[in-house]
Amino acid sequence: MAEEEVKVFRTWSSPFPLRVIWALKLKGVEFDTVYEDLSNKSPLLLQYNPVHKKVPVLLHNGKPICESLVILEYVDERWKQFPLLPQDPHERAKARFWAKFGDDKVLQTMRMDVLLKQGKEQEEAIVSTIENLKYLEEELKGKKFFGGETIGLVDIALGWLAYHFNVVEEIIGVKLIEQQKFPLLVAWMQEFSNIPTIQDSWPPRDKLFDRYASFRKAALGEHTPK
Amino acid sequence: MAEEEVKVFRTWSSPFPLRVIWALKLKGVEFDTVYEDLSNKSPLLLQYNPVHKKVPVLLHNGKPICESLVILEYVDERWKQFPLLPQDPHERAKARFWAKFGDDKVLQTMRMDVLLKQGKEQEEAIVSTIENLKYLEEELKGKKFFGGETIGLVDIALGWLAYHFNVVEEIIGVKLIEQQKFPLLVAWMQEFSNIPTIQDSWPPRDKLFDRYASFRKAALGEHTPK
Repeated sequence: MAEEEVKVFRTWSSPFPLRVIWALKLKGVEFDTVYEDLSNKSPLLLQYNPVHKKVPVLLHNGKPICESLVILEYVDERWKQFPLLPQDPHERAKARFWAKFGDDKVLQTMRMDVLLKQGKEQEEAIVSTIENLKYLEEELKGKKFFGGETIGLVDIALGWLAYHFNVVEEIIGVKLIEQQKFPLLVAWMQEFSNIPTIQDSWPPRDKLFDRYASFRKAALGEHTPK
Repeated sequence: MAEEEVKVFRTWSSPFPLRVIWALKLKGVEFDTVYEDLSNKSPLLLQYNPVHKKVPVLLHNGKPICESLVILEYVDERWKQFPLLPQDPHERAKARFWAKFGDDKVLQTMRMDVLLKQGKEQEEAIVSTIENLKYLEEELKGKKFFGGETIGLVDIALGWLAYHFNVVEEIIGVKLIEQQKFPLLVAWMQEFSNIPTIQDSWPPRDKLFDRYASFRKAALGEHTPK
């Protein structure tokens, strides 16, 4: 096969490009990384993702692909080794369902209403996040990973739970994923983080804490009682 | 092949189950329909979609699949005739991107902030919807359908634009998809609606108008100046 151009546009902190990086590494695909500063986006990022202007973008032989879950499907179709999705159509549908659920019902709530709100709005977001985490706990019954014996698309999509989530918990001072309530999820977070490919790629925790804390401070700036 | 059980849980009005119905019809798959009343959900719906408790659910030989875009992928993998996604991985990624874009950036804004809000919030939602429709107009350049010469997954996902969208426009009294601004989108709406499978499945317009109008009335109830 001729040499391929595989490039990932990412930031140092975002969990979304990490999904793409994990998928490529697990499949043993070599790639280059372009670090973006979202406060000063590069002309290439705007050219490759003119609609959302966000990372990740996967550039493969000159063709851009955007949206992390869409990129994971592409990577899985394009490089067959270490499959991320199961073979059976019904199992594939279930994986897609949980990946979408994680984004729609846990990630969005956590990074918007849990991290950036306070009072009643934040409390409601915490309650609904815990409710939604219970579905994930349930889904892990009898399995080591969401993908079964090895990690798959759902594990990769939910990977941020094993790292970024705890940073938010610490900032707001509330533990949502408690060992007693979520033993399977806690075990999964540990197993997932133990995988060398995953472990090596987390952003620096202190820096991430400062960044998220500053988001919260900025969001609450005009509402915080003096 | 042994006789298969294929059942679609739907309501009479929602655009989401229509996607599944169109996909099955285009592929010539026979199926039964279960009409749900969302104000009084059936035990079967709650059993098959315990997480979202929503339609559509596709029940195939006893196994439920939820979330309309996930179901479309399943249907396309399970029944190969009349493919909804192209073969090429990059083209497949583009189709998934636009289907997701339609849901995240057009459908949600239209049915929440355009239909249910007023004043500045509604105006901003209209502006952002028009901005996002421009991307779809651009995507149609040189093509009859989003899928090319025949309809595909993106056409099916955006199908509500050709019918439900106009009902919302009429209720709020603002035309968003104007012929002059969106000639390709207007032509697409016509071409799409002309397909017999599509044409035959629209819900009664008067009834849909009344339903959406009552949603708007209820949402604005406490805010409307007397």
